[in-house]
Amino acid sequence: MALIVQKYGGTSVGSVERIHNVARRALATQSQGDQVVVIVSAMAGETNRLLTLAGEITPAPDRREMDVIAATGEQVSSALTALAIQAQGGQARSFLGHQIKMKTDNAYSNARILGIDAKGLRKQLDDGGIAVVAGYQGVDEQGNITTLGRGGSDTSAVAIAAAIGADCCEIYTDVDGVYTTDPNVCPRARKIGRISYEEMLELASLGAKVLQRRSVEVAMKYGVPLHVRSSLSDLPGTWVVGEDTGLESVVVTGVTYDKSEARVMLVSVDDKPGVVATIFGELATEHISVDMIIQNAASDAQGRTDVTFTVAKSDLDKVEPMMTSLSEKLGARDVQYDERVAKVSIVGLGMRSHAGVAARMFEILAKEGINVQAISTSEIKVSCLVAAKYAELAVRALHDGFELDVEPKRRGD
Amino acid sequence: MALIVQKYGGTSVGSVERIHNVARRALATQSQGDQVVVIVSAMAGETNRLLTLAGEITPAPDRREMDVIAATGEQVSSALTALAIQAQGGQARSFLGHQIKMKTDNAYSNARILGIDAKGLRKQLDDGGIAVVAGYQGVDEQGNITTLGRGGSDTSAVAIAAAIGADCCEIYTDVDGVYTTDPNVCPRARKIGRISYEEMLELASLGAKVLQRRSVEVAMKYGVPLHVRSSLSDLPGTWVVGEDTGLESVVVTGVTYDKSEARVMLVSVDDKPGVVATIFGELATEHISVDMIIQNAASDAQGRTDVTFTVAKSDLDKVEPMMTSLSEKLGARDVQYDERVAKVSIVGLGMRSHAGVAARMFEILAKEGINVQAISTSEIKVSCLVAAKYAELAVRALHDGFELDVEPKRRGD
Repeated sequence: MALIVQKYGGTSVGSVERIHNVARRALATQSQGDQVVVIVSAMAGETNRLLTLAGEITPAPDRREMDVIAATGEQVSSALTALAIQAQGGQARSFLGHQIKMKTDNAYSNARILGIDAKGLRKQLDDGGIAVVAGYQGVDEQGNITTLGRGGSDTSAVAIAAAIGADCCEIYTDVDGVYTTDPNVCPRARKIGRISYEEMLELASLGAKVLQRRSVEVAMKYGVPLHVRSSLSDLPGTWVVGEDTGLESVVVTGVTYDKSEARVMLVSVDDKPGVVATIFGELATEHISVDMIIQNAASDAQGRTDVTFTVAKSDLDKVEPMMTSLSEKLGARDVQYDERVAKVSIVGLGMRSHAGVAARMFEILAKEGINVQAISTSEIKVSCLVAAKYAELAVRALHDGFELDVEPKRRGD
Repeated sequence: MALIVQKYGGTSVGSVERIHNVARRALATQSQGDQVVVIVSAMAGETNRLLTLAGEITPAPDRREMDVIAATGEQVSSALTALAIQAQGGQARSFLGHQIKMKTDNAYSNARILGIDAKGLRKQLDDGGIAVVAGYQGVDEQGNITTLGRGGSDTSAVAIAAAIGADCCEIYTDVDGVYTTDPNVCPRARKIGRISYEEMLELASLGAKVLQRRSVEVAMKYGVPLHVRSSLSDLPGTWVVGEDTGLESVVVTGVTYDKSEARVMLVSVDDKPGVVATIFGELATEHISVDMIIQNAASDAQGRTDVTFTVAKSDLDKVEPMMTSLSEKLGARDVQYDERVAKVSIVGLGMRSHAGVAARMFEILAKEGINVQAISTSEIKVSCLVAAKYAELAVRALHDGFELDVEPKRRGD
């Protein structure tokens, strides 16, 4: 007998018919002899409807009250799902954040889970029933309702799976797994069979929208195997697991791109200590996240250099006045902005043991005539900033070049 | 400084504009130096929308889950109202059933309040804020969400007013008070200035829909003065108070009618001990409420009599087969049903000290040629069953006959 947590997103519970489909799937799993905990998101569109309503009351609503409102979406869908399971002859009961003591900090709209009291869930399972938990919501120490941020139901599910010692956490969504790249860009994209938590984290933060980043972190921390799959088919999806569990034998696992950033360049600033600290210190003070940073040592006779970095396009309004005043202070010759850029990345655990992966990436891009404007790397990732118009071309070239469409062998096979 | 509880019904919070109107009113009260607790119903139509959704999942939804769903209506409106108060410059915070430990029994969809922990509300008031409470909802001993039944927000409001020792509980609604009778039937109906809890209870149970019966019972038990008034005007409404607080000096306070009952007559049954007990025992076993009961002593030579009673029309489906089998068992000659009846009642504390009020009622009806089919009385009420077609005529005749349109003097004036 296994203990399985199943998480269904908003599309999977988006209609009465689909809720019945969720109930059927949960009951089918239970009928195989497994214990089942279901975590649901709000019905698709419901959270937006509620937030719009609040926005009509006031343009800048208080986040505590927003969470009170937003949490009702999952409250309704959890009870509807329990009703559907009952209607199909099963035993089910809904559980809300405050009922399973899903304790969080009090960062409204973006709270972090601190602990869960799984007693009620265990009792429900031991009584032969299915527990249906409202995702996305918790309570702080004072009993105020909190929410975990968009995509927070994934995190709820993984945290509950960890708390009750589930054998795995199935994440049902409207796609059938994690792909080597965006199939809309590259028709030869292949569904990945198994991927490590680390790789998934890089993919999640680089723009793949299948799993919320924090849910992968929690799964990695507690070693909860994730299974990302479609609620509309019975085919296996993608397993997200630890490194030691028979991963695929590939160097590059996936290719992603991200058009949400803009490039900022301070032209010709003094290459002396403290300059860079001043620039990024001011950005940090304003809570502006900087992604890529490039600064070469000064090459010209005057000891001056260019400093390039990327920020979210949505932060540009705040960044521009800061840079105007900074460039005067630092004696920069100019500040240039470019929103027509894309970050293209390759991700793979195999890079750790394979030299020359980055070089191969540059080679592939060069062969297509794509200029690389900036580079950043981590242990298992290489990102290149390119002109936005080349993003899709770069993705397809890298996907082909690293042969991601070829079904890989398991490691050790 | 007074402590005032204000309850707003679904129509009063039925739109963004109306919620802002509620916020304005609460802030206006606070700016007079009073402390204010606001209790809100769900936005008009919301509870029905939610119950319909559940009904689409399954025709016979579990009541525990129904309460989880239904409670979200008030959760949303309480947070929206808090946001509106904040938007107008006030300080406000929403409170849900589980956050004020509104403890109830576990009779889902019709729970009774057992206790309230008012600490959080008091703190909010002492901090200079307005507390906005989601009406209609509570939690049982295990933390399951319960609801108090339709109109339950009135009861929430009165129970909270009692728990925090409020000076009064204002019930805002879409009518401007309690009238001597239905103004749609009798244009000369007059708004009552002050009425006793006992009279209001009789009016509430006799079909006046302004206040939920249980809320009046709780108000009477704890001596909470109620003020029923319109959320769309500043005019005073109707005060519902104890008997010793300067009530109006009238014999009859109001006239009501009720067309929801049907008359059942068992014709010619043995007038011997146990027969009546058998009839009403069976009805009680099936949880069928009987209202009026009429049985005269046997007057004919055979010692046989007719037994008449009224039940809700909606119970007739269950009553008919029971009576068919009972009438055989008891040797009744026939069972007759009449759905075309109405119960017309006069209510007034003054009846206690004024003889002849019932006789005057019969006289007024007789003068209009209206036959009385059955009579029942209590200390402060007389009800007559008449043909349904005469209901409105009877109401108008009684309203005129007892001069309810005349502005009364206060007692002791």
